Amino acid sequence: MEKYTIGVDFGTLSGRAVLIRVSDGAEVATSVYEYSNAVMDETLPDGTRLAPDFALQDPQDYLDVFTITIPAVLKESGIKPEQVIGVGVDFTACTMLPTTKDGVPLCFLDEWRSNPHSWVKLWKHHAAQDEANKINEIAAKRGEEWLAEYGGKYSSEWFFSKVWQILDEAPEIYEAADRLIEATDWVTWQLTGVETRNACTAGYKAIWSKDRGFPSKDFFRELDPRLENVVEEKMSHDIVPPGRAGVLTEEWAKKLGLPAGIAVSVGHVDAHAAVPATTVVSPRKMVMVMGTSICHMVLGETKHTVEGMCGVVEDGIIPGLFGYEAGQSAVGDIFGWFVDNCVPEEYEKKAREAGMNIHSYLTKLAEELKPGESGLLAIDWWNGNRSILVDADLTGVVLGYTLTTKPEEVYRALLEATAFGTRMIIEAFESNGVPIDELYACGGLPEKNKLLMQIYSNVTGKPIKVAKSSIGPALGAAMWAAVAAGKEAGGYDDIVEAAQYMAHLKDESYTPQPEEQKVYNKLFAEYKLLHDYFGRGANDVMKRLKAIKAEARA
Amino acid sequence: MEKYTIGVDFGTLSGRAVLIRVSDGAEVATSVYEYSNAVMDETLPDGTRLAPDFALQDPQDYLDVFTITIPAVLKESGIKPEQVIGVGVDFTACTMLPTTKDGVPLCFLDEWRSNPHSWVKLWKHHAAQDEANKINEIAAKRGEEWLAEYGGKYSSEWFFSKVWQILDEAPEIYEAADRLIEATDWVTWQLTGVETRNACTAGYKAIWSKDRGFPSKDFFRELDPRLENVVEEKMSHDIVPPGRAGVLTEEWAKKLGLPAGIAVSVGHVDAHAAVPATTVVSPRKMVMVMGTSICHMVLGETKHTVEGMCGVVEDGIIPGLFGYEAGQSAVGDIFGWFVDNCVPEEYEKKAREAGMNIHSYLTKLAEELKPGESGLLAIDWWNGNRSILVDADLTGVVLGYTLTTKPEEVYRALLEATAFGTRMIIEAFESNGVPIDELYACGGLPEKNKLLMQIYSNVTGKPIKVAKSSIGPALGAAMWAAVAAGKEAGGYDDIVEAAQYMAHLKDESYTPQPEEQKVYNKLFAEYKLLHDYFGRGANDVMKRLKAIKAEARA
Repeated sequence: MEKYTIGVDFGTLSGRAVLIRVSDGAEVATSVYEYSNAVMDETLPDGTRLAPDFALQDPQDYLDVFTITIPAVLKESGIKPEQVIGVGVDFTACTMLPTTKDGVPLCFLDEWRSNPHSWVKLWKHHAAQDEANKINEIAAKRGEEWLAEYGGKYSSEWFFSKVWQILDEAPEIYEAADRLIEATDWVTWQLTGVETRNACTAGYKAIWSKDRGFPSKDFFRELDPRLENVVEEKMSHDIVPPGRAGVLTEEWAKKLGLPAGIAVSVGHVDAHAAVPATTVVSPRKMVMVMGTSICHMVLGETKHTVEGMCGVVEDGIIPGLFGYEAGQSAVGDIFGWFVDNCVPEEYEKKAREAGMNIHSYLTKLAEELKPGESGLLAIDWWNGNRSILVDADLTGVVLGYTLTTKPEEVYRALLEATAFGTRMIIEAFESNGVPIDELYACGGLPEKNKLLMQIYSNVTGKPIKVAKSSIGPALGAAMWAAVAAGKEAGGYDDIVEAAQYMAHLKDESYTPQPEEQKVYNKLFAEYKLLHDYFGRGANDVMKRLKAIKAEARA
Repeated sequence: MEKYTIGVDFGTLSGRAVLIRVSDGAEVATSVYEYSNAVMDETLPDGTRLAPDFALQDPQDYLDVFTITIPAVLKESGIKPEQVIGVGVDFTACTMLPTTKDGVPLCFLDEWRSNPHSWVKLWKHHAAQDEANKINEIAAKRGEEWLAEYGGKYSSEWFFSKVWQILDEAPEIYEAADRLIEATDWVTWQLTGVETRNACTAGYKAIWSKDRGFPSKDFFRELDPRLENVVEEKMSHDIVPPGRAGVLTEEWAKKLGLPAGIAVSVGHVDAHAAVPATTVVSPRKMVMVMGTSICHMVLGETKHTVEGMCGVVEDGIIPGLFGYEAGQSAVGDIFGWFVDNCVPEEYEKKAREAGMNIHSYLTKLAEELKPGESGLLAIDWWNGNRSILVDADLTGVVLGYTLTTKPEEVYRALLEATAFGTRMIIEAFESNGVPIDELYACGGLPEKNKLLMQIYSNVTGKPIKVAKSSIGPALGAAMWAAVAAGKEAGGYDDIVEAAQYMAHLKDESYTPQPEEQKVYNKLFAEYKLLHDYFGRGANDVMKRLKAIKAEARA
C-alpha cells in the first residue's frame, strides 16, 4: 500500500497543504486556504490602529490552514488516513510571536488582544529598524564575531530586532510572554504538544550557531539590561537540526482526520525546505529560488565568511552541512515594474493580437537580440542590494540609452542585470572557499522565462538544472516528513535518500553558450566596475539622491 | 504707406516665405513649399543608388521655393509689390554645393547629373566622417590654433569635410566645380547675380575668422596636395558680415512679382538669424533655439576659448560682435523618444480621456512633483554630447530607479537632465570670460512646455524670456532684409534698430524660484560628478559598450 506525507507551506497570504506520494514524490492533492486576516498593516481586527511599517498576522489563520486544508487533501485524494505517515511544515521567516508557557498566543487572550505587539510579527514587519540599527552599532562596537556571518548587517526583519521592539514599545507584552517563538516552531508545537526549536530559523534569524550558541549575555545586556537572559527566559538553548520533532497528538489527529502518533518533522523556512526538493543535498550546487526576488543557497562542508551573505548555519538546511544563504532583493519584481511602467501601448496591442502576455511578447523580441547588441547596461538595484553589498539605499541604473533604444532592449538589459547580480554572489562564494559547479533553479521564474535561464547560464558560465516541482517548499516539507517518519513507517532514513526518490528535475536544462559567454564576460566587467563605483563608496550619489528625496517628501 | 520685407527660411524638408511689416514686425502672410525631392538618402531622381549616410538635396527645390512662395505671400497679403523693400534668406548649414563659375549647380548639367557629388550636400549628410577624422588628426598634430575655436573638434557635417569627400570620391566633380558654396550664399547669388560669401557660414562651418582668414595653404596641402589652393580656386577670401548683399535682378524680379532693385541681404544660418528676432543684439544674453536639439548663442565683445563650443565667429551673428555658438545634440528628441518608447497604455488611455496629448498629460503629472522627489537623476546623452564634451559616443543614463518609480518621474528627470546640460554650457561660458545674465528662448519647445521652461530657469538660476514669434529664423531674415534696404527705403539703419521695432517678447517669462533652485543646485552637483566621470575618461564604459554593440551588429 502506497504511503503519503503532507507538506504544509505557510506563505504570506495563504497556507497550502500538499499530499505527496512517498515512493516517487508525486503531488497527489493540494488545498489552499487564504488567511482570513491576511496581513494586518493598518488595523487589528478590533480596529486598533497600527503604526507605520507594521505587518502582523493572526495565528488562528495558521491553525485554520491545518484544519481546512489537510482534511481537504485527504478527501480530494481518496486515500485512507492510515496511508499518511507524516506531516511537515515550512514557513516564512522570521515570522514570530509571543505566547504563554503552554504555547497560547498572547493575542488569543482578551487581556492583550488590543495590543499590536501580542500578535504575530510577519517577516515583512519593518517597524523594528531602530532596534536593528542599534544591534548593528553595538555588535560592531563590541566586535561580535557573528556579525560577519550575516554579511556584516543584522536585519530589521530578524528575530531580535522584533523581540527588542516588543520590549521597547510594549514591555508588558514582553513581560507576559513566556515564550518568544518562530511561527514554524509554534505550529509544530501545536501539532506535537512539544516545543521544538529548529536550527534553520535559529541560525539565520536569531544569531544562533551550533559551535558558539547564541550571542553572549554581555551582548544582550548591552542592548538592554532586561534582555540579558532573553534566551533562557523566553527561548531555548535546545536547538535541533531538521528531522523529527515529535508525533501528532490525539487532539490534532482528530481535528485533521489523521492517525495519532504519526511523525511530525522539525519546522523549516520555506526557501530552505526547497533545497532538497530541488534534488540538492550536497555541496558545490547553488539553489536559486527565483521569483520576485532570488534566494541563493549553497551547502558546504566547512564554514567560511562570504561577503554579504544572509547567513551561514550548520544544520541550517541539511544536517551535517553548513547552509549558506545569499539573496537579491528584487528580480521578478523588476521585470514586473517594467511591464507596469515602461511598455508602450503599441506593444500591448501587438501582444494581445498575438495572444501573448506582455512578458512573453517582450521576451520574444528580446530573444532576437544578441548579447551586447543594445549597447545597454543596467544595475539591478531597484530594491537596493542584498548580497553582496547589503545596502538598501542603492538604486537601479540603466546606462547606454540612445534615440533608437527599444523597450525590448531595456527589458533584456534588466534580465541581464539580475544575472550579473547573481554572478557577483557566485564569485563572492567561490573566492571565499565555497565552490559552485552547477546552478539549480526553482520558483516561478524558471517556468516563465527560458531566455532568462539561458542568460543566467551564459552570464555565470554554469549549467542550470530546473526543479520539476513548482511547489518546492511544500514538497521539501513533505520530504522532511518522510524522513521524520523513518524507514520502518514507510519513509526514508535520511534526506539524501528522500531526495533520491521524491525530488526530480525537469528534462530541460541550460548550458553556457561559449560565444555569448565571451560577450557577457565583457559586459560583466563593466557591471562590476559600476557596481563597485556606486556600491562601495567612490560615489555615493544614490544615497545622496535618496536623502534629497526624503527631504523633498518630508 | 507701410513697408514690408520678405524673409525666406530654407529648412530641411521645406522652404517658407514670410511677409513681415517693417514698422512692427507683424507676420502678415506665410507660404510654405515642400521640396519635391525632399532629402535624397537612398537614390538620386534618376535612380542612382547612394552610399550609406548620404543626405542630398536638389537646388531646383530652392529656386521653386522663391517662385512659389513669394508670389503666394504677395497675393495672400493683398499688398502692392512696391511696398516690399527687401528680401532676406536663412538656411540650414553647412548645406553646400558645387557650381560652375556662373553659379549653375553641376547637378543641373547632364554630364554630372548621375553623380551624387554634383548635388547639394545637406547639413545632415554624414558620409564625410573619414575626412573629418583626418582633418582633426592633422589639425591636432600641427597644433592649428583654430581647433580650439571649434571645441577641439571639426565636424563631419562641416564644409571642408564635405569638400574633401568630393575630392576623394569624385575628383572629376571637384575639378569641374568652379565654385564650392554654401546654399545660403548660392540662393542669394541667384537673386542678386553677385556671389557673396557670408561670415556666418564661413566662420562656423569653414574655419574662417576675420582676424586670421582661412587655414593656411600648408594645412590644406597636408590634407591633400590638391586642396592647397581650395580657397583661391573654389571659394573666396572676400567674406562679408550680415547686411546688404546686392539688389534683386530684373530677371528674378519678374519671376517673383517684385520690383527689381530692392535690397537683398547677405545669407545667414537659420539659428543665427533667430538671435535678433528674439530681441537679442548685445552681450550677456544667451539665446536658446529649443526644439529637437538646442542651439545656444551668445554675443561677446572679445574672443575667448570656451570648452566644447561649436564655434566663435566675429560678425557671425551681429556685425561688430563675436558670436558664440554651443549646442545640445538631443533635447526635444529625448522627450519624443520617451513618449514613443516608454509610456504605458494606461497613461495613453487617461490622456485620451482627458483630451490631452501625451506630452501634456505627462507634464501635468510631472508638475505635481517637487525637485528631487523622484530620487532620479538622468544624463541627457541620448544622442551623444555636443557641448561641452564634443563626444558623439556618449550615451544616456537614468539612475535612481526603484520599484515605485513612475513614468512621470522619469519624464521629469529627462526634462531636468537637459536643463543640467544647458547649465554645463552656461558655466563653461561664464568661467571663460563670457558672462550670461539672461536666457532668451525661441523654437517649438517653449510653446509646448512651460514646466520645462520653469525647470530651466530654476536649474540655471537665470531669468528666461520667450520670443513672441514662432518663426524666428524667417523673422530674422526679414529683419536683415529691412537693414539691407536701409532707412531711406523705409527700413532701418542697423539690426539694433530693426530689433527694437520688429522683434518682440511674449508677456510670459520665467524667474528662478529660490526653494527649487536650492534643490537643483544639489542635483546639478551630482549631475556634474557623473558628467565628468563618464565624459572625461575616468570610466569609458559608454564607449566600450558602443564598441561591443558595433561588434555584435557586425
